[in-house]
Amino acid sequence: MASLMKSFVEVAPGSQFPIQNLPFGVFRPSNGASPRPGVAIGEFVVDLSVLADAGLFSGPVLASCFSQTSLNAFMALGRPAWKEVRSTLQKLLSADEPTLRDNDALRSKAIIPMSQVKMEMPAVIGDYTDFFSSREHATNTGTLFRSKENALPVNWLHVPIGYHGRASSVVISGTDIRRPRGQTSPPEGQKNPEFKASALLDFELEMAVFVGPGNKLGTTVSVDDAADHIFGFVIMNDWSARDIQKWEYVPLGPFLGKSFGTTISPWIVTMEALEPFMCAAPEQDPPALPYLTEKNRKTIDIPLQVALKPEGESKASVISNSNFKYLYWTVCQQLAHHTINGCNLKPGDLLASGTISGPDSGSLGSMLEMSMGGKKEIMLGHGGIRKFLKDGDEVIMTAVCQGDGFSVGFGECSGKVLPAL
Amino acid sequence: MASLMKSFVEVAPGSQFPIQNLPFGVFRPSNGASPRPGVAIGEFVVDLSVLADAGLFSGPVLASCFSQTSLNAFMALGRPAWKEVRSTLQKLLSADEPTLRDNDALRSKAIIPMSQVKMEMPAVIGDYTDFFSSREHATNTGTLFRSKENALPVNWLHVPIGYHGRASSVVISGTDIRRPRGQTSPPEGQKNPEFKASALLDFELEMAVFVGPGNKLGTTVSVDDAADHIFGFVIMNDWSARDIQKWEYVPLGPFLGKSFGTTISPWIVTMEALEPFMCAAPEQDPPALPYLTEKNRKTIDIPLQVALKPEGESKASVISNSNFKYLYWTVCQQLAHHTINGCNLKPGDLLASGTISGPDSGSLGSMLEMSMGGKKEIMLGHGGIRKFLKDGDEVIMTAVCQGDGFSVGFGECSGKVLPAL
Repeated sequence: MASLMKSFVEVAPGSQFPIQNLPFGVFRPSNGASPRPGVAIGEFVVDLSVLADAGLFSGPVLASCFSQTSLNAFMALGRPAWKEVRSTLQKLLSADEPTLRDNDALRSKAIIPMSQVKMEMPAVIGDYTDFFSSREHATNTGTLFRSKENALPVNWLHVPIGYHGRASSVVISGTDIRRPRGQTSPPEGQKNPEFKASALLDFELEMAVFVGPGNKLGTTVSVDDAADHIFGFVIMNDWSARDIQKWEYVPLGPFLGKSFGTTISPWIVTMEALEPFMCAAPEQDPPALPYLTEKNRKTIDIPLQVALKPEGESKASVISNSNFKYLYWTVCQQLAHHTINGCNLKPGDLLASGTISGPDSGSLGSMLEMSMGGKKEIMLGHGGIRKFLKDGDEVIMTAVCQGDGFSVGFGECSGKVLPAL
Repeated sequence: MASLMKSFVEVAPGSQFPIQNLPFGVFRPSNGASPRPGVAIGEFVVDLSVLADAGLFSGPVLASCFSQTSLNAFMALGRPAWKEVRSTLQKLLSADEPTLRDNDALRSKAIIPMSQVKMEMPAVIGDYTDFFSSREHATNTGTLFRSKENALPVNWLHVPIGYHGRASSVVISGTDIRRPRGQTSPPEGQKNPEFKASALLDFELEMAVFVGPGNKLGTTVSVDDAADHIFGFVIMNDWSARDIQKWEYVPLGPFLGKSFGTTISPWIVTMEALEPFMCAAPEQDPPALPYLTEKNRKTIDIPLQVALKPEGESKASVISNSNFKYLYWTVCQQLAHHTINGCNLKPGDLLASGTISGPDSGSLGSMLEMSMGGKKEIMLGHGGIRKFLKDGDEVIMTAVCQGDGFSVGFGECSGKVLPAL
């Protein structure tokens, strides 16, 4: 019974990181040593390189994965290896297993307070792809940019639309984001564009998966095999400068309106840890084409929250409650679509969901939608108001799945807006 | 006098790789040893790892760059290091320098016939960006997709439009390209899209630069400093499935219509080698915004040629003669624009020009333009006709700059179309 599993490591009730979670990340110890893979448990990080050096994983392949500064090699191994490591760790950390529990020297070296480490990017991202899979978000933005009648693009119900994003500017939670400058549309009645700091800076609430084993160029991954190519999930904030985006994006899509920064949460929650939260995915009408039709169509119930903390305020205001399960296109459909033309995926590639908006006004995934394109004020808890982000604003995204007697959380995806250069 | 420089290595008259060129690449020796950096001279490759091991470059930094399997570390060093290596190599290879010339053992180890090696990708590409900088190409495609009156998008003369491409599927010349399958628009009178092998497979004649030193996230590179961030140029074929592209690209831009393969030529011709071919760039009206205004606006006169060789034919037919100098937005403008929002570039990133079409019907950079969207037949030399590419077709792109008594060439960017899965 997953819900009854207990660790000898103290885990507070309601912790996001019980023994049932064990998300993977890369951390830098406080002693200046090089970054290495770890898993989170309670308020602690387990140093996988230490466990590997102690010979606690079977064979040299796993040991070599955990001596690296990124998780790419481990991601490449695939689900059997991931499951083996998870079950080894659950055993090593369980309350009745003495190996670590009773070895003071090894335990104190391997299990480090989270407060003493700095989280780093968990993988070297080869390519980052951003999808557009929320029907509500596509409808809301389509209504703003076109009209209610033509809200959804004609291809939207057939194609899991996606585009290539910028991998180099994906950063780890806690990294400040500089407000971008750029060209914006000519002011009313003028011919030439303006050049200025973005006045319409926004967040986008998303989730993203890290790809595990990839596929060779010229081959495809079927929608029913896609799950085996997914290592795990993170929360993602795809910061967006709406004014820059609006002027530049026709005809080749978003570019500088997005590429100034994308934040991800540091802990990758695996498919295994999310298994208890699988649920039905939205029905599709019209039916998807055969290559996108899943034998066993499922998604994951992951409640999501966005909070905004203005500079100098002590408390953040919750401004959205959404859920990953609202997405029309599942991550398996996204991945199968991505490869249907023979495009090769690689371990460590990042596939993001697109903004996750839900069906009501409290579940929107961007300020563009909440403010109806800047026409409506968003009320913050302490009397503040916003239409878009101000300098000093910190955006904090969280995600916690509620299990039977335990939670599986993702930690925090946060970033603060710095003034433009 | 560059034109009088001679090497002891035999270089045929008209060779693309005289001592004035010395382009960089990565090759795999025939003995199964690991890939390593080299430069081309005549019909030979100079193994830089051998020269480095022999202590012929100053200091350990360069030596360590040339013991790697990619050029990324060398790209990161910047122009002073690139110039030093070039001048060291020009000296070592010159007719009157005995060091290599008279050392049989070292010479035979360091200078290998090109026919005995296999070229590999010269760098690990972090991000690949494709621009859209040919006014003629933008006008031609705009006329096809919209109308002659609204051919150029309203932002085009202000913004060096670009989008993120797929880095994982950039391959080296000689790699076969599998015809992609995918969704295409609903046939006339029907509601649902088709799923099929692309019937409108095309090439795009482009050139691309490899980025040298990058910039930190949140900082910019000025247009007048941009040249120091450019290592060198390759020819690029941005294969495109026009029917897939047409159905998917609204609203977020090209995705699967492009990501099935992008071919580059193996030898990177440096800015130093291209210096003699600098020429005036097209005047810009309206004037570019200040951040895109160059103190010394120049481009490069690089004649480009596309040939098509059907399966079983012994000869390729030349179907286009274009030139890099036609581009409206220079590569320095592209790079400065890319970073104006604070986006970070990294050594080894690839920035492509977009399709390079010239002013007349013999200088078009894609079959989409040559066939006027499939309405007109393209005549091949041996009686064949095409509107788009057939299975077995090989597309061969070349680029040769004509100097005073010498040529500076790029070798070949070629690929053959395999039938769909």
